[in-house]
Amino acid sequence: MCRLVAYLGEPLRLKELILTPPHSLLVQGYAPHDMTAGLLNGDGFGLGWYDRRLRPQPFTYKNILPIWNDLNLPSLCDYLTSGCLLGYVRSATPGLAVDYSNCQPFVQNHLSAVHNGRVEHFRQTLYRPLRSRLTDEHDLNIQGLTDSEHLFAWILHHYKRTGDLAQALCDSFMTLLDLVPDLDVTFNFILIDGEQLIACRLAHGELHPVCTTCRDIPTIREWSCSEPLFRDDRWVRCPQGTVLVATQPDQVQVRHLPGSGATSVATHAVAP
Amino acid sequence: MCRLVAYLGEPLRLKELILTPPHSLLVQGYAPHDMTAGLLNGDGFGLGWYDRRLRPQPFTYKNILPIWNDLNLPSLCDYLTSGCLLGYVRSATPGLAVDYSNCQPFVQNHLSAVHNGRVEHFRQTLYRPLRSRLTDEHDLNIQGLTDSEHLFAWILHHYKRTGDLAQALCDSFMTLLDLVPDLDVTFNFILIDGEQLIACRLAHGELHPVCTTCRDIPTIREWSCSEPLFRDDRWVRCPQGTVLVATQPDQVQVRHLPGSGATSVATHAVAP
Amino acid sequence: MCRLVAYLGEPLRLKELILTPPHSLLVQGYAPHDMTAGLLNGDGFGLGWYDRRLRPQPFTYKNILPIWNDLNLPSLCDYLTSGCLLGYVRSATPGLAVDYSNCQPFVQNHLSAVHNGRVEHFRQTLYRPLRSRLTDEHDLNIQGLTDSEHLFAWILHHYKRTGDLAQALCDSFMTLLDLVPDLDVTFNFILIDGEQLIACRLAHGELHPVCTTCRDIPTIREWSCSEPLFRDDRWVRCPQGTVLVATQPDQVQVRHLPGSGATSVATHAVAP
Amino acid sequence: MCRLVAYLGEPLRLKELILTPPHSLLVQGYAPHDMTAGLLNGDGFGLGWYDRRLRPQPFTYKNILPIWNDLNLPSLCDYLTSGCLLGYVRSATPGLAVDYSNCQPFVQNHLSAVHNGRVEHFRQTLYRPLRSRLTDEHDLNIQGLTDSEHLFAWILHHYKRTGDLAQALCDSFMTLLDLVPDLDVTFNFILIDGEQLIACRLAHGELHPVCTTCRDIPTIREWSCSEPLFRDDRWVRCPQGTVLVATQPDQVQVRHLPGSGATSVATHAVAP
Repeated sequence: MCRLVAYLGEPLRLKELILTPPHSLLVQGYAPHDMTAGLLNGDGFGLGWYDRRLRPQPFTYKNILPIWNDLNLPSLCDYLTSGCLLGYVRSATPGLAVDYSNCQPFVQNHLSAVHNGRVEHFRQTLYRPLRSRLTDEHDLNIQGLTDSEHLFAWILHHYKRTGDLAQALCDSFMTLLDLVPDLDVTFNFILIDGEQLIACRLAHGELHPVCTTCRDIPTIREWSCSEPLFRDDRWVRCPQGTVLVATQPDQVQVRHLPGSGATSVATHAVAP
Repeated sequence: MCRLVAYLGEPLRLKELILTPPHSLLVQGYAPHDMTAGLLNGDGFGLGWYDRRLRPQPFTYKNILPIWNDLNLPSLCDYLTSGCLLGYVRSATPGLAVDYSNCQPFVQNHLSAVHNGRVEHFRQTLYRPLRSRLTDEHDLNIQGLTDSEHLFAWILHHYKRTGDLAQALCDSFMTLLDLVPDLDVTFNFILIDGEQLIACRLAHGELHPVCTTCRDIPTIREWSCSEPLFRDDRWVRCPQGTVLVATQPDQVQVRHLPGSGATSVATHAVAP
Repeated sequence: MCRLVAYLGEPLRLKELILTPPHSLLVQGYAPHDMTAGLLNGDGFGLGWYDRRLRPQPFTYKNILPIWNDLNLPSLCDYLTSGCLLGYVRSATPGLAVDYSNCQPFVQNHLSAVHNGRVEHFRQTLYRPLRSRLTDEHDLNIQGLTDSEHLFAWILHHYKRTGDLAQALCDSFMTLLDLVPDLDVTFNFILIDGEQLIACRLAHGELHPVCTTCRDIPTIREWSCSEPLFRDDRWVRCPQGTVLVATQPDQVQVRHLPGSGATSVATHAVAP
Repeated sequence: MCRLVAYLGEPLRLKELILTPPHSLLVQGYAPHDMTAGLLNGDGFGLGWYDRRLRPQPFTYKNILPIWNDLNLPSLCDYLTSGCLLGYVRSATPGLAVDYSNCQPFVQNHLSAVHNGRVEHFRQTLYRPLRSRLTDEHDLNIQGLTDSEHLFAWILHHYKRTGDLAQALCDSFMTLLDLVPDLDVTFNFILIDGEQLIACRLAHGELHPVCTTCRDIPTIREWSCSEPLFRDDRWVRCPQGTVLVATQPDQVQVRHLPGSGATSVATHAVAP
């Protein structure tokens, strides 16, 4: 299971998420908490960030080295500045190559995404049914072998129909079970597009779901992480079945997946 | 266009093909002759070799660094010894990641293969028709994005039916045109299985075909290369439409693809 | 011999030097002109740039892959913006590891530097005499094995005494011959500190010196390169024995090394 | 602190130390026991082995990737066969580049060596005094920055005088304190030359010394490791101040460093 971090708010230098917090993404690489599978996240990492004055598409940086061995990272993270960004450290599924193409974030047009989770027996179950249903556009964009990248293509496939990202997350998750009944899937995604941050915690089957926690400082900032970056009692744990939508400056909505116990879109109650 | 080298004969140390000849695979990395596309082969490389006392499957070694920058290569090539081997230096198609998974040789069971050539507009033309016709076994073995790996899966798909490798090369090449009429494809493959070496020079369409040359020293050795490793007038150029089958100790057969101007299987005339 | 590029002027995105010109640093990697030794610059590369609003020290990015295989470079060079920067593609001396530590630019405090040239038989001649004369401060800063990094330490050693970078370049070059009479050395350096760009073309001995060309667009920009980035008749070739000092906005001075045929500091005549 | 493994005995395939034991070198990479500093050994690794039918010098293989991410390792370790070998996984000192040149084993002529330990504040204390005393031969062979490589040069410096490796280990350790009184140093070395295996556990100062354990199966095999590869009550822990010398077929001597509590060379008592 990988570890994710994302941020929406006033511009900050990437080191403020990646390097300097007590439980930064770097630390989550070699000393993660709460891992339900694997010991480390030492199989590469990636960053995605936006600067819409330069271009609408995200910028990305990926490396197959462990995050703690990238000698360029201190310099880059001290320079790179953004108000909409995400990061990821990888714990590779055994047998999958530690290749650049298997490294997140994945990008399509203005969107970038990271995924933490797993489709159990992905190649034997979901792989071919999913690919056969993708249109050329989304199939041909796939560069690697990971379940994560295929799930992202599936989300894009649904997003194209509705133009609503949060809806596409829900729809694409639910239709997986149409393709493969009884699929074991953990579907924790964070998507950003330069203006909003959408995170979900969805799962089906026997896998122990991984938590997605988040922090709100009202009126300014939104963080989503696999693990809190620092001690603070404003971190809250996303309940299972949740899709969280944050838009600037301070709008946060929470949707509950039908059948997950809550039925409507609610404004997220943020304790100051 | 990549450069290939293969050898069948008495065991030798890999450096005798890879490092020490005047126009070794190493030299073909940074100073190839006869390139019809690209200037260099600096986008990774790979080796495959057999030692059937240890196991029937091939051993492989691949690296995404240019062959001239692999600091382990002198030591490995001085140690590795085999009588059936192949090597490859890559010139990546622009846009394709220099990833381990995109690096040759490709392996399936006892077979290993290298390909030099290209399917023009592969992703837009052949990719989806070919994948949809593969059985799970061959589709799920694909690890990367290259046209080469997909063509190898297509060969295996045909090989499974007949058990005849040379025939599978011919069949798989010809059926490509059933999938995509007017396909532009250069299909220079070398396959080895520990006992035989099969090389072909096949092409269709507008591409300038790349030559596959070979050298025979009767009774002992068979070399197949994109470019001769050293000056010797026994190197001969495979004609277009040819499949060459070498078995130990000194059997070399040449098949001509139907419609390519020659019609029967002939024993290769070797000038001493 | 490596290839260098540097720029001082109005801020631009790094791709304008590194990626997009017809003879960009990227192209100088795989298809350099004018190489007096080596065929390629495929042994790693590096960038250095300043943003003094963030910090006075330079930012750097280095990679041991060939510049044409760094999949992060298009994104980084579209984002990174600076008015004082340098870049470098490496052609490694045979036998020296393609290691991060051997990759330029080298950095000390506010300075960054790239070197194109060579000390003939460096390890056997200059290495130990030079190191024994360095103070701890400059000796302990050395991270790798290259002649370039040792020459840079030697420059810093002289710079500390006078605080004049152009003078330190001249002094350190001339004192090399005190350490090792008859030293064969090509000493083409570019140094930047965020406010000025200093380039020199100095050599002694039998080596064919490598040119350092430069371009001036009066009142705005200063470029220094091993090879012109694009066709333009304002590129001029630095004569042997020259140190060029550019400061913003448009000051360019040329010093001539004593004994090199010119004796005084002259303002660089720039043809509009 | 790194982890080491070495073997002298009947030829075996390297996977028998590196990959297949329950606590193989691979496992010691991501889940070491007994680490007194660091959590992991994920900063590269290296192998050294001999085949004296091919050449007297060792063969080596190194990689800056974590041992668990080297996709070539399963194939190489299934092929490589030797009766005299060593392996190493690195836990880099913070600030030192994860470079090939900083990766062990180090080699000089017929010798190869790995080191587990540390010189506290190496660059500020021992670095310059040691280098100034080395002859050109040993100084110029140094390729990287690690304390380990400099200690190995120091051992070679002493070995040249006496031709006795075990003596050189003792002498070089003791003379370190002449160079820098009160030096904090952990000096656990394993050296092999194709015929013998010499391991020591020496230390001075405040550092917690790291154990070097070993296993004897009389008449055949000698293992030396930082951590036992598998459960077996024949593993014994080398006492502090010990130099162990194993020669084929079954000779094992233990020397005790003067002043470490034992005074003479004793034959190692091996419990069957």
